[in-house]
Amino acid sequence: MIRLFVPDPLLAGNRFHPTTEQAHYLRNVMRLGEGDAILVFNGRDGEWRATLAEVTKRGCALHLAEPIRPQTTGPDLELIVALVKRARLETIIEKAAELGASRVRLVVTRFTGADHTNVARLQAIATEASEQTGRLDVPEVAPPVKLDRLLDDWPGGRRLVFCDEAGDARPVIEALKDSAAHTVLIGPEGGFAPEERDRLRALPFVIPVSLGPRILRADTAAISALTLVQAAIGDWR
Amino acid sequence: MIRLFVPDPLLAGNRFHPTTEQAHYLRNVMRLGEGDAILVFNGRDGEWRATLAEVTKRGCALHLAEPIRPQTTGPDLELIVALVKRARLETIIEKAAELGASRVRLVVTRFTGADHTNVARLQAIATEASEQTGRLDVPEVAPPVKLDRLLDDWPGGRRLVFCDEAGDARPVIEALKDSAAHTVLIGPEGGFAPEERDRLRALPFVIPVSLGPRILRADTAAISALTLVQAAIGDWR
Repeated sequence: MIRLFVPDPLLAGNRFHPTTEQAHYLRNVMRLGEGDAILVFNGRDGEWRATLAEVTKRGCALHLAEPIRPQTTGPDLELIVALVKRARLETIIEKAAELGASRVRLVVTRFTGADHTNVARLQAIATEASEQTGRLDVPEVAPPVKLDRLLDDWPGGRRLVFCDEAGDARPVIEALKDSAAHTVLIGPEGGFAPEERDRLRALPFVIPVSLGPRILRADTAAISALTLVQAAIGDWR
Repeated sequence: MIRLFVPDPLLAGNRFHPTTEQAHYLRNVMRLGEGDAILVFNGRDGEWRATLAEVTKRGCALHLAEPIRPQTTGPDLELIVALVKRARLETIIEKAAELGASRVRLVVTRFTGADHTNVARLQAIATEASEQTGRLDVPEVAPPVKLDRLLDDWPGGRRLVFCDEAGDARPVIEALKDSAAHTVLIGPEGGFAPEERDRLRALPFVIPVSLGPRILRADTAAISALTLVQAAIGDWR
């Protein structure tokens, strides 16, 4: 069944209008008509069955029928990823949503080529992947900040899982302790600069981990690290 | 440093010619010249330093200088993957090479759209990914066979890790026992047919595993499953 993320409050009997793109998708791509059912979620009110109404050439309405699943949220699992090349960054955002990340933050490091990106487009990719993977929320994609600033402002109690290519770190499953909040950090294609790595390894909240004996591309590293954190302390246990 | 997979025997003092594509890559893309060094491996004789010689407009030769690393092979970790859509299949092949799979076999199931694919192109992708990830061998990509035939001919002693979307399977880390040889099975986009799933679950060599509570695309499932097997019993420990 088709699932759509909507901003509207979900309450029995409520009726609202999807965006122009969503209406186009429902009517013209999926060829749904009056009375056909889809699933909707907004990240707060669980999953609801909704039926199409007022289907015209210009749009449609959605009529909320009944709640299907109560709201749940996954583990507090953030991903911080350097601004790698666009295609790879888009893959990482899609996969982070599939793997249950609660938030994705973009970071600028010494060896990062760019210092900005189209955050709205990445947020749209996160939303679409969330619709398809069956989760009841959408990870927020936060705009790029510099690594130093991000480390300066680090919130207490949150562990930073640092995927360290340099080789002497422990395997993820072994390194992770039970803790409420984890963030996975994935560096740019050229890795971290020596001074960045030194700072990371010296910080008390950083857990350096190894992702095996081979060199991984940034997208593979992100998927593998999120998988292992979910398996070790998240909702894959 | 540039790494190339070559079919030639690697012996001190040996001199041989790379393929036309490799010579083009070395001279015109990477702009290497006479005396510049690269690394070569052939899957049998370890990694060697080689220098460019006889550089002309038409090609070049490689002169083996010295061995750098002795031959090693990773765990006996196969991936069997259904013929999903081309872009996704190519991603899976690339990632299988990065994650240390020893072999990739293609499979046709009830819900697989195609029954053939360009195996030579997939093999080239596996080779390029192996060059970049730093491994000393290249996973073979075996042509598609039908799932039933593959299960009929299953070799003794090898475990089949079946990524079962149906929900009651155990987490990978928990399910895997120490065993010399494992194969990971990833189904097509539409999943396995009920009779395929029944057959798989009834076979003594099959270990059904769960990949978390969300629906994963085939490429994400392949990467996550290979990661977890490597972390549980492979070379990521």
